[in-house]
Amino acid sequence: MAGTDRKRAMIAEGPAIVLVEPQLGENIGMVARAMANFGLSDLRLVNPRDGWPSEKARQAASKADHVIDATQVFETLEEAISDLHFVYATTARERDGFKPVRGPVEAGQTLRAKFREGQATGILFGRERWGLKNHEVALADEIVTFPVNPAFASLNIAQAVLLMSYEWMNSGLSDVTETAFTHNDMTPATKEETFGLFDHLEEALDARGYFRPEDKKPKMVDNLRTLLARRGLFSQEIHVLRGVINSLDRYSRKRPRGSGAPDEIASQPNERPDNG
Amino acid sequence: MAGTDRKRAMIAEGPAIVLVEPQLGENIGMVARAMANFGLSDLRLVNPRDGWPSEKARQAASKADHVIDATQVFETLEEAISDLHFVYATTARERDGFKPVRGPVEAGQTLRAKFREGQATGILFGRERWGLKNHEVALADEIVTFPVNPAFASLNIAQAVLLMSYEWMNSGLSDVTETAFTHNDMTPATKEETFGLFDHLEEALDARGYFRPEDKKPKMVDNLRTLLARRGLFSQEIHVLRGVINSLDRYSRKRPRGSGAPDEIASQPNERPDNG
Repeated sequence: MAGTDRKRAMIAEGPAIVLVEPQLGENIGMVARAMANFGLSDLRLVNPRDGWPSEKARQAASKADHVIDATQVFETLEEAISDLHFVYATTARERDGFKPVRGPVEAGQTLRAKFREGQATGILFGRERWGLKNHEVALADEIVTFPVNPAFASLNIAQAVLLMSYEWMNSGLSDVTETAFTHNDMTPATKEETFGLFDHLEEALDARGYFRPEDKKPKMVDNLRTLLARRGLFSQEIHVLRGVINSLDRYSRKRPRGSGAPDEIASQPNERPDNG
Repeated sequence: MAGTDRKRAMIAEGPAIVLVEPQLGENIGMVARAMANFGLSDLRLVNPRDGWPSEKARQAASKADHVIDATQVFETLEEAISDLHFVYATTARERDGFKPVRGPVEAGQTLRAKFREGQATGILFGRERWGLKNHEVALADEIVTFPVNPAFASLNIAQAVLLMSYEWMNSGLSDVTETAFTHNDMTPATKEETFGLFDHLEEALDARGYFRPEDKKPKMVDNLRTLLARRGLFSQEIHVLRGVINSLDRYSRKRPRGSGAPDEIASQPNERPDNG
């Protein structure tokens, strides 16, 4: 049928999410939301218990209307996946049979590899309480199972869809360490800046008799330098710390900055260069 | 206080999950469920809007009672994380500041590394609508953000907790390809078994005049062998296929197996060895 062909021809952005006999409209909506977070929008329902469309699903979908609007409904699983090339079945229980079993990370990578080859892929999710039947799993290519705590395994459908959608997103990142944003313009400090911090602090402490007794000074200096150096400080952070040291050094409680009085260093006979 | 000390001394199985001013008891319950799936049970609430305990939370937690029962409540975030050594803050928006920003995979690995060093860790999650405030993020060591579709980013707290708990579990797997179960006792076929399949099928087809005309036979044989060899068949699968070929070869619709009549091969003058 032309309408169906047009729908099926829509450019795949990723795997189709296929829910087999979903029971609750609310769960379908939460599935749509989970999908949208990770850029998926091809939702297919096989014989939903309460029919379609579903107002509960639309409400639970929140702003994922575009997924709800494009949802396709089929009477059988065979029809729902007939245009696909490669399909995963999600299961929690071990099944007899020949199917390879993968974890979600590997499954995400396989789906991505197939996608890049131009294949249409899909992932099957079963009924809320009973999952998929063996003959439904048999229609898939591989099984994916989640690494849940065996003592408490209770992922619901929307959570399972969330995890697979997330791994789909991960598989498309050139580097899993990349993030949408990073810390603003931070640059690591050079040794020169670090040594500048050492000198600044040591001089201020020395002037106060901190390094006593004399024979302990080398060790105390080394400990302090190790403490400062081990921090992986950014240039900008060294700048902040030097401002902190400067405040403690130049000003006092009695004569704070802004009090109009000459600062503690300026009022010393041997004036230090201004490095604030 | 002795009671608090006892609670805090409980052996950490993983990061503490810290919810800052959670608004809905139902969300707290769903968080507890998400945690339990991946072996986490240290849930801490900072100034929950509707107080504690919460019947809605307990109901939504379903069987994750053990998490609800052990939930600790604090008035301030500082108190909630005072015993921890390393803390992640989850944020969706970019924040000014010095904090390193990680994706969930890397964050999970960092949490695992710290855990193995004996450090107590935690992950902060903010309010349903407003997330964490900047001064709360400032108390953490690093930021973790999820690779969501910027056009539709709507992970709720329970989903964010699910993803971090999942990555915590992943980081503890010796190999992310390992699964709780695998396909039953399947062993790849040897070449001998594969060649046996070739011979069996080719002989049955040859006897039926399949390889015609004669000059095309070598190519047809090669194509068929490539088709069969490319499948990555298990020993057990070859066994099944040979049974299929045997059925097609030995029996006919008129004289099926069980009909009592001699099979198609046995009734041939040159009886083939029984290889069914």
